[in-house]
Amino acid sequence: MKLARIKTTTGIHPALIGTDGRAHDISAVVGDITAQTVTPEGMAQMRSIDPSDHPVIQGEYAPVLDDIRRIFCIGLNYSDHAEEAGMPIPSEPILFMKSCPATGANDDVILPRGSEKTDWEVELGVVIGTRAHHVDERDALAHVAGYCIVNDLSERAYQTERGGQWTKGKSCDSFAPVGPWLVDAADVPDPQSLPMYLDVNSARRQTGTTATMIFGVAHIISYLSRFVTLMPGDLITTGTPPGVGMGMKPPQYLKAGDVMELGIEGLGVQRQPVVAYRP
Amino acid sequence: MKLARIKTTTGIHPALIGTDGRAHDISAVVGDITAQTVTPEGMAQMRSIDPSDHPVIQGEYAPVLDDIRRIFCIGLNYSDHAEEAGMPIPSEPILFMKSCPATGANDDVILPRGSEKTDWEVELGVVIGTRAHHVDERDALAHVAGYCIVNDLSERAYQTERGGQWTKGKSCDSFAPVGPWLVDAADVPDPQSLPMYLDVNSARRQTGTTATMIFGVAHIISYLSRFVTLMPGDLITTGTPPGVGMGMKPPQYLKAGDVMELGIEGLGVQRQPVVAYRP
Repeated sequence: MKLARIKTTTGIHPALIGTDGRAHDISAVVGDITAQTVTPEGMAQMRSIDPSDHPVIQGEYAPVLDDIRRIFCIGLNYSDHAEEAGMPIPSEPILFMKSCPATGANDDVILPRGSEKTDWEVELGVVIGTRAHHVDERDALAHVAGYCIVNDLSERAYQTERGGQWTKGKSCDSFAPVGPWLVDAADVPDPQSLPMYLDVNSARRQTGTTATMIFGVAHIISYLSRFVTLMPGDLITTGTPPGVGMGMKPPQYLKAGDVMELGIEGLGVQRQPVVAYRP
Repeated sequence: MKLARIKTTTGIHPALIGTDGRAHDISAVVGDITAQTVTPEGMAQMRSIDPSDHPVIQGEYAPVLDDIRRIFCIGLNYSDHAEEAGMPIPSEPILFMKSCPATGANDDVILPRGSEKTDWEVELGVVIGTRAHHVDERDALAHVAGYCIVNDLSERAYQTERGGQWTKGKSCDSFAPVGPWLVDAADVPDPQSLPMYLDVNSARRQTGTTATMIFGVAHIISYLSRFVTLMPGDLITTGTPPGVGMGMKPPQYLKAGDVMELGIEGLGVQRQPVVAYRP
């Protein structure tokens, strides 16, 4: 099952992707796709819906959940990315937060005012479906509602040259495209075997697979749950494989007019035009 | 004007503190105190209410706003605290996030499971009332709805010995008492002249004044607004003066049975019992 939210001139409509590959408007059944929808009860209700009973809807993708409250990010979670970033391999997951509203999979990415080091990061996103507090690794995946693509946009100067903590370089407006779909965890039997890529202007920049994560999804959830009580609707983005602009020789960053395209197997494709700063 | 939220057996009631020093239930006028309440329109409506027209209500304080979405924290913002923490004086504000639900001013502080280094931090909290994006320092205080006390509880081992970023040590359940009141910014003409203190078991631990902040409130808001678009209801907590447990020789941390009492002039007093871990 694939959940989506579709923007039209009449607002955002909850949708399911049918076997025809098209979005079907389920607003006759639910008002929106929210933290409540991703609970086990909500997901069971969603699974009971036959998309073909509902009309096809056309429009752009909105973020997969209304009102994503918290975005927890894991840093340097692919060993070869840590190497290109010139950072040591972490001995336990590095946690930081991203604090901007999520945007749609194909929405513009807006360069921050004066930014010269805006960078891309394709990542596997994990949406939590049930409260997780001190959960064992073997039980952790049962807390996942579904998976999605996240482009963890980063301003490297803000992140690393402006005083230590990373949130500053991760939270500019438009820096969190999430989607296009939320794919039911039941349809992703092994989150550690998903190929992923990111292109800039059709040139391949990142190639990877979740198989090379240092800390897998189950470990991350178990680990985070010792420090933070995870709640339905929380999004965890799990780190990026090698190939970010910062790691290129010389480094290359995004400029207005660039187009990013990124995908993870089974989770769809995102495509974002990069545009100049606008307030 | 002082806004508060009072917990009773019938739920949480919005309140204003009257000239009698007591909380008056204004639920006949507004449903709750929310991000909408702290906008200029909402604050104007609150100011138009005479508390004495409304019944006194008794109960415990809830966090000053329903649903505090984001807590931005400024680290090492008092030079003498940076010194006791053994950290260099920052050249620009250090931003990190705290990601747990806010609690009431007098709610229990729960030690995390196995924690040995839970520490206190009295801080001036700033609640944003209007969107702030690239605002000049001279205009910044106009974006403040009000001020409150925050105890920025911190687990020092989680914060500093577990992989770099600080969020991990700041986000345990019960680690964000906020209140007792939200004091209208109009009643705090100079946020840089507020004496503050924190006691543990009636022994003075922290003594300070916002006059010795490295980066004042206006600078912090202006600075953050270049990286994150601040929104109504966002809470910024502005750093702590010296006297935290980590800085004592030898370090002293909280244990079950301790009681913290902390205050900032004009913003009230918090009092939290420390209790053993409970899930």
